[in-house]
Amino acid sequence: MTYRAPVKDMLFNMQELAGLQALTEQIPAFADFGIDTAQAVLEECAKFNEDVVAPLNWEGDKAPSYWKDGEVFTTTGFKQAFKQFAEGGWQGLQHPADFGGQGLPKTIGAACGEMINSANLSFALCPLLTDGAIEALLTAGSDAQKNTFIPKLIDGSWTGTMNLTEPQAGSDLAQVRTRAEPQGDGTYKIFGTKIFITYGEHDMAENIVHLVLARVVGAPEGVKGISLFIVPKFLVNADGSLGARNDAHCVSIEHKMGIKASPTCVLQFGDHGGAIGTLVGEENRGLEYMFIMMNAARFGVGVQGIAVAERAYQKAASFARERIQSRPVDGSLPSAGPILHHPDVRRMLMTMRALTEGCRAMSSVAAAAYDAAHHHADAEICKQSQAFYEFLVPLVKGYSTEMSLEVTDLGVQVHGGMGFIEETGAAQHYRDAKILTIYEGTTAIQANDLVGRKTARDGGAFARSIAAMVEATEAQLLTRDSAAARAVQKRLTAARLAFVDVVNFIAANARSNPNATYAGSVPYLMLAGNLVAGWQLARSLLVAEDKLAAGEDAAFMSAKIATARFYAEHILSRAGGTRDAIVEGADSVTALALDAF
Amino acid sequence: MTYRAPVKDMLFNMQELAGLQALTEQIPAFADFGIDTAQAVLEECAKFNEDVVAPLNWEGDKAPSYWKDGEVFTTTGFKQAFKQFAEGGWQGLQHPADFGGQGLPKTIGAACGEMINSANLSFALCPLLTDGAIEALLTAGSDAQKNTFIPKLIDGSWTGTMNLTEPQAGSDLAQVRTRAEPQGDGTYKIFGTKIFITYGEHDMAENIVHLVLARVVGAPEGVKGISLFIVPKFLVNADGSLGARNDAHCVSIEHKMGIKASPTCVLQFGDHGGAIGTLVGEENRGLEYMFIMMNAARFGVGVQGIAVAERAYQKAASFARERIQSRPVDGSLPSAGPILHHPDVRRMLMTMRALTEGCRAMSSVAAAAYDAAHHHADAEICKQSQAFYEFLVPLVKGYSTEMSLEVTDLGVQVHGGMGFIEETGAAQHYRDAKILTIYEGTTAIQANDLVGRKTARDGGAFARSIAAMVEATEAQLLTRDSAAARAVQKRLTAARLAFVDVVNFIAANARSNPNATYAGSVPYLMLAGNLVAGWQLARSLLVAEDKLAAGEDAAFMSAKIATARFYAEHILSRAGGTRDAIVEGADSVTALALDAF
Repeated sequence: MTYRAPVKDMLFNMQELAGLQALTEQIPAFADFGIDTAQAVLEECAKFNEDVVAPLNWEGDKAPSYWKDGEVFTTTGFKQAFKQFAEGGWQGLQHPADFGGQGLPKTIGAACGEMINSANLSFALCPLLTDGAIEALLTAGSDAQKNTFIPKLIDGSWTGTMNLTEPQAGSDLAQVRTRAEPQGDGTYKIFGTKIFITYGEHDMAENIVHLVLARVVGAPEGVKGISLFIVPKFLVNADGSLGARNDAHCVSIEHKMGIKASPTCVLQFGDHGGAIGTLVGEENRGLEYMFIMMNAARFGVGVQGIAVAERAYQKAASFARERIQSRPVDGSLPSAGPILHHPDVRRMLMTMRALTEGCRAMSSVAAAAYDAAHHHADAEICKQSQAFYEFLVPLVKGYSTEMSLEVTDLGVQVHGGMGFIEETGAAQHYRDAKILTIYEGTTAIQANDLVGRKTARDGGAFARSIAAMVEATEAQLLTRDSAAARAVQKRLTAARLAFVDVVNFIAANARSNPNATYAGSVPYLMLAGNLVAGWQLARSLLVAEDKLAAGEDAAFMSAKIATARFYAEHILSRAGGTRDAIVEGADSVTALALDAF
Repeated sequence: MTYRAPVKDMLFNMQELAGLQALTEQIPAFADFGIDTAQAVLEECAKFNEDVVAPLNWEGDKAPSYWKDGEVFTTTGFKQAFKQFAEGGWQGLQHPADFGGQGLPKTIGAACGEMINSANLSFALCPLLTDGAIEALLTAGSDAQKNTFIPKLIDGSWTGTMNLTEPQAGSDLAQVRTRAEPQGDGTYKIFGTKIFITYGEHDMAENIVHLVLARVVGAPEGVKGISLFIVPKFLVNADGSLGARNDAHCVSIEHKMGIKASPTCVLQFGDHGGAIGTLVGEENRGLEYMFIMMNAARFGVGVQGIAVAERAYQKAASFARERIQSRPVDGSLPSAGPILHHPDVRRMLMTMRALTEGCRAMSSVAAAAYDAAHHHADAEICKQSQAFYEFLVPLVKGYSTEMSLEVTDLGVQVHGGMGFIEETGAAQHYRDAKILTIYEGTTAIQANDLVGRKTARDGGAFARSIAAMVEATEAQLLTRDSAAARAVQKRLTAARLAFVDVVNFIAANARSNPNATYAGSVPYLMLAGNLVAGWQLARSLLVAEDKLAAGEDAAFMSAKIATARFYAEHILSRAGGTRDAIVEGADSVTALALDAF
C-alpha cells in the first residue's frame, strides 16, 4: 500500500469543524448526507484510489503521456482507471442529480478530491478540469447546452478543459487574442492558439469539451471584450451523437518538471478553416463565467496541495519508521535505531503533518461554507457563508500550495540521499507540487484577490470579522487549564493581532500607496492562511480535549492535540515576523532601482 | 550569455568584509595576492566559466552522463571543458606551489568556486571532490603519497573521490562495513560496496583516486575502527606511470532528480579478488582524516548553494525585465509592462538577491578566517580564526543550501507557467539545488555539529563572542542617521538577542534535555546563519554608505544599501519566530507518540 486515505481525520473535520450535521439538518437536499453516508462514501473512495489510482502515480512519472501525430496517448493504465472512475460515478459526486450526479455536499466531495489527488495528481487533473467545466455550464450555459454536455461530462464519456492562456496572455487575460467570428447561424468560428491546456487532448474519453476564452470581432479591448465558447473536439449532433472532427488540434505537449502524466497541450483553433464554437451566456461576459470555473478549480488546486503533502508525509513517516541510523541522542535505545527517534526527524515529520492537517481543516470549513452559501434557505446565511468562502479560497489555494512545497521538500529531506534518487518516489512529489503555486492563478494572483477584492474593498471589515471569530476561539481556550490549550492560545492571539495589524495596514494604504500594499500581498496571504489553518487546529484541540476526557479514541485525540500544539508553537509563531516584514518593510521591497536588477 | 559572474560583488566582499588587504600584509605567502590579483583572477575565471562551462549546464540535464558496461560516459562537451579547466590551472588555485598549485588564498578561491558552480553544478562537482582529496592527502598522506598523487590531481590528469556511504551507512558512519585485509607488503585488499560516489567513474581523466573508508580486519566497532585508504582506479607504478586496473568497478549509476550530468556511482571493491589500497596516515584514524576532506567539501557545498541561487536569480531577473504582463498597480506605466514593475515580483527578486548576497558575504568572511587560521604567524590569531571558521562552516553549508531551495523556488515562481517547462531552465536549478541540503552531511548533521561541537561544548561561549561582534556592528549603525542604518540596526539587534536566547537555551539544556536541545538544532542553524549573513550585509551597508557619501560607484553602493535593508526587514525579521519555536516549542516536537506517525 503506497497511500492510505486519512479517512478518520477527514470525518473529524467534517463533523467537528465544518458542521456537517447542521448542513444535513438545515438543508433539505443534504438530509441524507450525514456522517454515516460520508463515512461510507469516503471508505469506498479510499478503496478505489488506494487500489486503482495510487499505483499508477510513479508509472506516470516514468512513462508520461506522449504526443504523436496530433494525438495524445496517456500513461498505460490511465484509460482503464478512468473507465472505473467514471463507472463508479465519482465525476458526478458533487453535481446535481438532474444531470446524473449524486448531489453530495462539497464538504464530502472535497475530501474525495483530496484522495484522488493524493493517489495521483496527474490523473486527478482530468476530473478536476471537468468539474470546472460542469460548474461553468451549470451557471452560464443554456438549457440545451446543459442537456447536451453535462450528462456526458458527468458519466465520464466526455471530459472538459479550460482554455485561457495564450503565449502573451498568462496572468494578464486582458491580452487574450483568440478571435471568434459570428457565422450568422448562432455559431462562431474560433481562431487562435491556446497554451498550457491540461488534458487538452487525450485518449480516455470519446470527446473533449473545450471551454475557450475568445474575443468576438469588434469586441472592446481588455477583459471586458472576452467571451466564453464551447468548442468540442468532435461536434455534437442534435441527437447527442458525435459529428465531425472540429478544427481544434493539439500540436504539441510540454516537457514539464512534474505532473508528467498530465498532458499539457498547445491547442490550435481554426488552422484549417475555423473551429466551430457556441457562445456560453452572453458576449463579453466570458471572464465572469470563467471565474466560476476558476474559483472551483482554485479550491481544487488548494486541495491538491493538501493531497500531495499528505502523500509526501506518509512516505516520509514510513521511511523514518524503517530506516536505521545512529543511536538516539536521549539514549532511549541501546544502539542505532529507526530515524524516527531523532528529534530533527520528528520536527520535520511534525511540520509536514501539522501543515497538512491545518490546511485540510481549513479546506473542510471552506467547503462547508460553500455548501451553505449555495443551498441554505436563509439569505443572510447564504451571504455570510459566501463571503467567508470567498475570503478562504485564496488562502486554500495560495497557502495550501505554498505549504506543499515546504512539506514535499521535507519529504525528500527525511529520506536523505535516497530522497534524491527518483525511484524512491519522494522527489516526484517535490517536482509535482511546484506547479500548484502557479496554475489557476499564481500565489501572487491569489494574493492580489485577497488584498484587493477581499480586504481593501470593504476597508478590511470582513477580515476583521474573521479575527473576531478567532478571538472567540481564544476565549474558549482561555477557559481550559491544559498546557496545550494555553500554549495554543498564546500563539493564536499573537498571530491574530499580527493579522489585524496587516489588515489595518492594507486598509490604510490600498489607495494611497498601492506599491507598499501589494509588496506585502503574498506575505499577507501566508499570514492569513497560517492564522486560519492554526485557528482550525485550535478548534480541533478544544474538541479533542473534550473527547479525550470522555474517553473517546484516546490515540487519535492525543495526536490531534499534539499536532495542534506543534502547529501553534512552530508555524503560527512565524506570524510576527511576517507582520513586521509587511508593515515595517514595505518600502524596501521597491527601493532598488529597476536597472539594478 | 546565460550567466555573468558577479565579480564586483565578490571583490567588494573580499576587500571590505573579508579583509583581503590585511591577509596580504600579514601573511607573507599571500603578499602577491591583493585586490588587483584577485580582480585579474576573477575576471579570467569568469570568462572561462561564462564561455565554456555555463553553456554545458542545460546540455548535461538533457543528456546526462550514462553508464555502459562498467564505464561512465560524461555529457558531450564535459571532457573538452575539463581539459581546458585543467590546462587553465584552475584545479590548483588554492593548493601549494610545491605540488604545482598556485597557492592563492581561499578568500579568492571560494569566489572562483562559486563561479564554476553557478556555471554548472554537475561539472563543478568533479573538481570539488578532487579538492577534498588533495586536502586530505596534504594533511594525512605520506610524502610518497603526496608526491605520487597530488601533482597529478592538481594538473587534472587524475581526479579524486570520497567513498564514505554504504547502503546501511549514510549519516551513521559507525555502520561502515567495507573491509581491509593487510597483505603484509604494506598494502591492503579492500572488499565492499560504496554508494553515492560522485564521479566515482568517468571519462574525463586518466585515473581516479578513490579515498575509501574501510575497517581493517580486527579493528574496533564503531567510528573508532575506521581507516582511510587510497584505492586508485589504476594502480600506480613506482615511476608514476599507470599500472594494472584495480579491482574497483562502477556497477551502476543513479537516476537522480538533479545534477544529472554528475555520475553518482555504486562502486564494488574487491569482487574479483580484492582492490589494492594503501593506508593514509594511521589505522583507525580514518574518520578524522576524512573530516578534513569533508570540511573542505562542506564549505564547498555551501558555496554551491550560493552559486545556484545566483544563477537562478540572474535567470529570473532577466525574465522579469522582458516578460510583459499587466499594468503596474501604481499606474507608473500607461499599459501592461515588464513584470519587474509588479511589487510581488520585486519582492521575490529582492528575496533571492538578499539571500544570495548575504550568504556570499558570509562565505567570503569564512574563507578569510580559514586563510588566517592556516597561514597567520600569530598563534592566537590562528586559533581564533580557526574557531570562527569552524563555527561558520555549518552555517555556510546548512544555511546557504537551505536558502538556495527558497531562491530556486522563487526563481521558478517568477517565471510563472514557463518556469515549470523544462526548456526554460529555471526548473533545473530547483531540482539541482535539492541535493545540496543532503550531501556532505544533511542540514541536520550540520546542525548537530553546530549544537554539539560548536555551541554546547564550550557552554555557548564562542557563540556569545559572535553575538558580541554583531553588537559592535550595531553600535556602528547607531552612529548613522540614515533610515536604512536605523532599520537594519533594529532588526539586527532583535535577531542577535534571539540568537543569544537560543544559545543560552542550548547551553542550559544540552546535557539535561538532549531531545529538547536537538529538536531545535536545525532552526538554531537557520537562525545563526540568518544572523551572520544579515550581520555581514549590515557591515556592507556601513561601507556602502561611506563610499556613496564619497561619491564612489553610486549605483553599486545604493544597491548594496537597498539589499542590506531588505535583508534586515524581510529575512532577519524571521529570527524572533525561530527563537520562539526553539525556546518555547521544544517539547511539542517530540510529544506525538512514536506509533502515531
